[in-house]
Amino acid sequence: MPRSRLILITGMTGSGKTTLARYAEEHGYSVVTMGDVIRDLAKERGLEPTPHNLGLVAEDIRREEGDASVARRCIEKLRRKEEARVVVDGIRSLKEVDAFREAHSNISLVAVHTSPKTRFLRLKRRGRSDDPKDREALSERDRRELSFGVGSAIAMAEHMIVNEGSLPELKKAFEGLMEGLNEA
Amino acid sequence: MPRSRLILITGMTGSGKTTLARYAEEHGYSVVTMGDVIRDLAKERGLEPTPHNLGLVAEDIRREEGDASVARRCIEKLRRKEEARVVVDGIRSLKEVDAFREAHSNISLVAVHTSPKTRFLRLKRRGRSDDPKDREALSERDRRELSFGVGSAIAMAEHMIVNEGSLPELKKAFEGLMEGLNEA
Repeated sequence: MPRSRLILITGMTGSGKTTLARYAEEHGYSVVTMGDVIRDLAKERGLEPTPHNLGLVAEDIRREEGDASVARRCIEKLRRKEEARVVVDGIRSLKEVDAFREAHSNISLVAVHTSPKTRFLRLKRRGRSDDPKDREALSERDRRELSFGVGSAIAMAEHMIVNEGSLPELKKAFEGLMEGLNEA
Repeated sequence: MPRSRLILITGMTGSGKTTLARYAEEHGYSVVTMGDVIRDLAKERGLEPTPHNLGLVAEDIRREEGDASVARRCIEKLRRKEEARVVVDGIRSLKEVDAFREAHSNISLVAVHTSPKTRFLRLKRRGRSDDPKDREALSERDRRELSFGVGSAIAMAEHMIVNEGSLPELKKAFEGLMEGLNEA
């Protein structure tokens, strides 16, 4: 059985976090998506998963239960899973990183960076239900996530993947990261 | 005469900002170092340039004159220089980026990222007067700069350079950036 490991992925909206999580899945990692906690909460509260509603829920839960509230719910999910290798998609602050570090001994914090201009062009193509629909909506989303402290998590990442090019390039960068982690 | 351009460099302590500024100098850019504003202020106030004193001055000036106070002093320096191509070393927040954008029409925000572990090993070797001397001092410095909002500036950078390897690799990445900027 492989050594237990938790990869935490952080980055701005549209930077490529979910794609990285999918690549990790191909390496036998189980995926926990922090945004799913927010989507579940919205459902519990009878709210449609619009960008606006999900944004409000993300703010509310942190205000009500603290900066690490979403992380704590993910850690509960992890306990039930009992998987050796898990990737967590969607870290938004160092408080969340700290919560995972308290719960797990082998953590790698990975940031994925894409310029605001490229993220906007990608999101226009993707069109997930909670994706910002125009530049102003993306700016608002960026401001909210920066207010959670996602910038600090990105700045303090142990590994930085730049995702400005093609998917094969991103995959190559991720494979390089995996090799580095497996050698460490 | 080349088109006027301002490159803003952001990144954590020990990530390689000053090395990038030196490379830009080799491309005919004039360098303005935001830390020099702090060092000058410390001198005016009769303080030794220790990490502790420079940290206090950096916090004081922002508290007294606002988040963009250091940026504004740099913009004054730029006006006196009247150089077409300038690189600004040491952006610490999006407020500072906004101040430069108001003063200049052609801005490129460049972040340089290095993992905390590698930064610590580099700083131990470098030993500039204001460099953190141990891991706790680096953590304190990181926390202060994150509190200024440097993480948000890094997260919103238009260009990200990862500096985990050798100086020739960093130089190559920088040359790639320069080519991209000159084509744009």
